[in-house]
Amino acid sequence: MPLKIQTPLILVNFKTYLEATGRKAVELAKTAERVSRETQVSICVAPQFTDIAAVAEEVEIPVFAQHIDPIEPGSHTGYVLADAVKEVGAVGTLINHSERQLRLSDIDAAIKIARGKGLVSVVCANNQSISAAVAALKPDMVAVEPPELIGTGVSVSKAQPEVVTATVRLVRKVNPTVTILCGAGISNGEDVAAALKLGTQGVLVASAVVKAKDPYRVLLEFAEKAKTNI
Amino acid sequence: MPLKIQTPLILVNFKTYLEATGRKAVELAKTAERVSRETQVSICVAPQFTDIAAVAEEVEIPVFAQHIDPIEPGSHTGYVLADAVKEVGAVGTLINHSERQLRLSDIDAAIKIARGKGLVSVVCANNQSISAAVAALKPDMVAVEPPELIGTGVSVSKAQPEVVTATVRLVRKVNPTVTILCGAGISNGEDVAAALKLGTQGVLVASAVVKAKDPYRVLLEFAEKAKTNI
Amino acid sequence: MPLKIQTPLILVNFKTYLEATGRKAVELAKTAERVSRETQVSICVAPQFTDIAAVAEEVEIPVFAQHIDPIEPGSHTGYVLADAVKEVGAVGTLINHSERQLRLSDIDAAIKIARGKGLVSVVCANNQSISAAVAALKPDMVAVEPPELIGTGVSVSKAQPEVVTATVRLVRKVNPTVTILCGAGISNGEDVAAALKLGTQGVLVASAVVKAKDPYRVLLEFAEKAKTNI
Amino acid sequence: MPLKIQTPLILVNFKTYLEATGRKAVELAKTAERVSRETQVSICVAPQFTDIAAVAEEVEIPVFAQHIDPIEPGSHTGYVLADAVKEVGAVGTLINHSERQLRLSDIDAAIKIARGKGLVSVVCANNQSISAAVAALKPDMVAVEPPELIGTGVSVSKAQPEVVTATVRLVRKVNPTVTILCGAGISNGEDVAAALKLGTQGVLVASAVVKAKDPYRVLLEFAEKAKTNI
Repeated sequence: MPLKIQTPLILVNFKTYLEATGRKAVELAKTAERVSRETQVSICVAPQFTDIAAVAEEVEIPVFAQHIDPIEPGSHTGYVLADAVKEVGAVGTLINHSERQLRLSDIDAAIKIARGKGLVSVVCANNQSISAAVAALKPDMVAVEPPELIGTGVSVSKAQPEVVTATVRLVRKVNPTVTILCGAGISNGEDVAAALKLGTQGVLVASAVVKAKDPYRVLLEFAEKAKTNI
Repeated sequence: MPLKIQTPLILVNFKTYLEATGRKAVELAKTAERVSRETQVSICVAPQFTDIAAVAEEVEIPVFAQHIDPIEPGSHTGYVLADAVKEVGAVGTLINHSERQLRLSDIDAAIKIARGKGLVSVVCANNQSISAAVAALKPDMVAVEPPELIGTGVSVSKAQPEVVTATVRLVRKVNPTVTILCGAGISNGEDVAAALKLGTQGVLVASAVVKAKDPYRVLLEFAEKAKTNI
Repeated sequence: MPLKIQTPLILVNFKTYLEATGRKAVELAKTAERVSRETQVSICVAPQFTDIAAVAEEVEIPVFAQHIDPIEPGSHTGYVLADAVKEVGAVGTLINHSERQLRLSDIDAAIKIARGKGLVSVVCANNQSISAAVAALKPDMVAVEPPELIGTGVSVSKAQPEVVTATVRLVRKVNPTVTILCGAGISNGEDVAAALKLGTQGVLVASAVVKAKDPYRVLLEFAEKAKTNI
Repeated sequence: MPLKIQTPLILVNFKTYLEATGRKAVELAKTAERVSRETQVSICVAPQFTDIAAVAEEVEIPVFAQHIDPIEPGSHTGYVLADAVKEVGAVGTLINHSERQLRLSDIDAAIKIARGKGLVSVVCANNQSISAAVAALKPDMVAVEPPELIGTGVSVSKAQPEVVTATVRLVRKVNPTVTILCGAGISNGEDVAAALKLGTQGVLVASAVVKAKDPYRVLLEFAEKAKTNI
């Protein structure tokens, strides 16, 4: 029986890292599945489009696309169709990752298409006001990336708590029910613990897991910290 | 043993048609493979990213991506990595399809990346001057789409021959060795015959095959006409 | 003394219509100024970038840019700098017009730059959820364009009132103080009256004025209806 | 009588530098005009859109836009119309500057629109293959930017001659009559001399002039070196 998406949630973005491409994507997804089974913490993976099918075939943890285009079936050569990612086994999708930013109307359209197809939408937002705007579009989840934590090397557990709590408060005001993930500043278990204590319900991580020497060990630490800090 | 890419060539673009998504992509690819075996004419298919793996697993005809992004492995969430499409079995890629047009420098970069990875590059160009410009970038193939034939309902066999021959001449002047496909105006076998007679070495088709009631019959007609009009 | 921006507001977008390019942009702006003086209703104009200087030189009504790029001074060849539009006399700018849509993070950045330079920001939003999202970014004004009114020929005065009031309500919930303009469905004076009655504080118009045989007469009707329907 | 565009040509791109915005754009253009008159070398300026009118009003040297959009008059809010830049006095335009890159089909369309309106088109190309591709589109001029010279601090006079001559040769092969400018690596008079000796017919410069303490002195040196190295 496939494992469910539930909070606290760890969502691992494979990006276009070679360490998580092709057969290595399947291997990493299996590691994530193993940790998820052992800890009973929900871990999801977001491999590249080309790897979704094999990953979804091989593991029972939830698989996400990294992006969908705001299109319906038809003449859209080279674009990513929600129906197609769903048919090969994805149950959700990232939208508007900071590396794949979309026009506002396309974010809105992609969320609506995801909703229509039964795909869980996780929309990324890289500052406070954008987080609030995104929350107004009613996605299933918002992954907030406080600018103080993006690419600065500052981790959540070391940052001023206000950096995260202010964003959480703003998002909650606009949308009381959306699930909030912390999408930046997660390097170790302490950061996962801090992110949850500060009001988010999970984390969106990438290199900390994918580039780790021992992804199993890192994910295990993340999951255990998540379990004890809900 | 996998079938080779050779001219005359029929390249079938699956676009994001539901009729060629998921399991239906595999079915259609099998039909193309059957015709290719029966006629010994080279037929290639370009399914959606998510379907490349399954299609390449199930058939021995060459499989193309519909697009690659001009990126190297790394932090490029939601983009299409050449290494990834190659690892799941693609041997080539469309670039700059009229529905997925790129900046000039990105076309150039994508061609170079494809070359570096050993992927066959088929660059689309939707008028004469653009065809010449694209030829200067030295891709493996150029798919020319004379504007008189795009979405006008006019087919190659009915159009003034000059519509195609003028483009072929211009492309040849800039790049004597590039393979030229006719990328518009192909509805039936007569059009395939006309395209080859006018100097192209193959056709890029989509709806005429994908949306056909009997894709087998259509492809068979295309392949037979291709065989007798080299 | 320059005329002020105040509600009810009529904002005339000159687009790239030849009828409002170059000397004709100045003429149309003078017509708008004349109506504004005669009726004491605030009328603003948004000419093309190249015409802002001449228009701002010749009239005392407020002049808007049609777009600014989210950039600071520097190496941004071909982009539109807030400082530059301000120096030639613009006092505000449209952002994210449905014909010039931006990435969410660029809308956010453009609003912040406009605020920093003292330019009034009018952000366009072409449906309910986008209007709410935009309101969360705290621009000075939101121009809402209910999809039922865009390019359908249905005008505000003929549409179900709910089409406009639902959007106004949603925007107000997220941002109680933002000025709301009705940005679609305004063809005649009745539509201006309806838009104001339904809770907006002004209108964003284009072809109804620019393409009119007698823009003076049309603007006069708009202004008089605006005056009596606050 | 307005000064003509002739080779050797010095084209000064004002970018969005504050040192060349608004009144300062006019001042800098006057300095360029003074040097052009004194040396009889053709110097052109490319100010921001908002400053074209004032610059063209105040000087008689040729004025270029930094970009035009591939649009015809109509509903294109926030875009740059060729007719509009022409009406305020521009006689040419940059297209596809490395900071404002366009899709291939948009470069092609912009060149055709420029030609149709009688605007001189200067298309930028940031490596050899792109330079050849651009030359195939038949613009009036190509500004080549060898990657070895962009942002590396290496200037033309110090680089291997082959860096420039190889590109010139390739462009000439595709288009024997296009005017070729050297668009990178120009810091001082020696570089201007080297660029012309290596087969280009002029230079496209920006910061070396705009950011100079004494733009008059720098431009004078450039012009004198240009004069003696045709």
